[in-house]
Amino acid sequence: MRILGIDPGLRRLGWGVIDVDGTKIRHAANGTLVSGNGSLAERLLRLHIELTDILLCYAPTHAAVEQTFVNRDPVGTLKLGQARGIALLVPAQAGLPIGEYAPNAVKKAVVGVGHAHKDQIGAMIRLHFPGVEPEGPDAADALAIALCHAHHLQSAGRLEAALRRASA
Amino acid sequence: MRILGIDPGLRRLGWGVIDVDGTKIRHAANGTLVSGNGSLAERLLRLHIELTDILLCYAPTHAAVEQTFVNRDPVGTLKLGQARGIALLVPAQAGLPIGEYAPNAVKKAVVGVGHAHKDQIGAMIRLHFPGVEPEGPDAADALAIALCHAHHLQSAGRLEAALRRASA
Repeated sequence: MRILGIDPGLRRLGWGVIDVDGTKIRHAANGTLVSGNGSLAERLLRLHIELTDILLCYAPTHAAVEQTFVNRDPVGTLKLGQARGIALLVPAQAGLPIGEYAPNAVKKAVVGVGHAHKDQIGAMIRLHFPGVEPEGPDAADALAIALCHAHHLQSAGRLEAALRRASA
Repeated sequence: MRILGIDPGLRRLGWGVIDVDGTKIRHAANGTLVSGNGSLAERLLRLHIELTDILLCYAPTHAAVEQTFVNRDPVGTLKLGQARGIALLVPAQAGLPIGEYAPNAVKKAVVGVGHAHKDQIGAMIRLHFPGVEPEGPDAADALAIALCHAHHLQSAGRLEAALRRASA
């Protein structure tokens, strides 16, 4: 199973790809898409084209997208929402199942606490994947989202196996 | 020139197509897309597919999208933002120039006042296009957005012509 994690943002969109084979998890790729200085529509189009290229290039089987942090800045929330629409559309167009995780759930799954700093996420990603240097904090976040989804699917798989054994 | 107006919304997305030939404006089509009860990603995918179909079917040369009303409900703002991302992406994928108008600007252009009711917009659309019955309030809004864009382009055209005459 290959998971694409996406940290949506209008200015910068982080992405990370990991491979999950039983309990083994390997890093495949990570990066950041920058939408540039065009009109809003041009920026959304650019994110759509580049994210579609990443899907075609790495052929993930699952996707996970961070739930946008709804804050008190409505203009910022709207911008994030528009970028998140693209981040959800692209894997849906490829027919991938999509997991969604709140930022605190991602931090808790990867760092162990829900209120971890951006720096702690980068440090934990480097520990998880020795020798891997995320392209930046958004790419590190995207890898963390993919990891969170991997843990979630692994637990779900273990639970299903235990239920099968109990009913056998 | 054929203008596609879009009133973005996650649950219901209104659309309307008008033809502009000099000062003559004719109604071509209008309707409402309903995203259904699937996951958020499935709903965005459905809006994308159906809005793309409308573009292929009516082949507009210009698009106009209502600027989302940023309110105090951040969850609602986020939902609208995600739908608006799709509403901007589809005409951008077709290479159309896109106008964006605030709700008050649309109301002012069509009804004459910035704080017109939804009902007044429907009534004004029926006056503008005798015999046309919009599919619902979102479709009426979308036709109003297209009309607002037509008026904007007509004024810009007149201004340009006047400037050309002045400098000739």
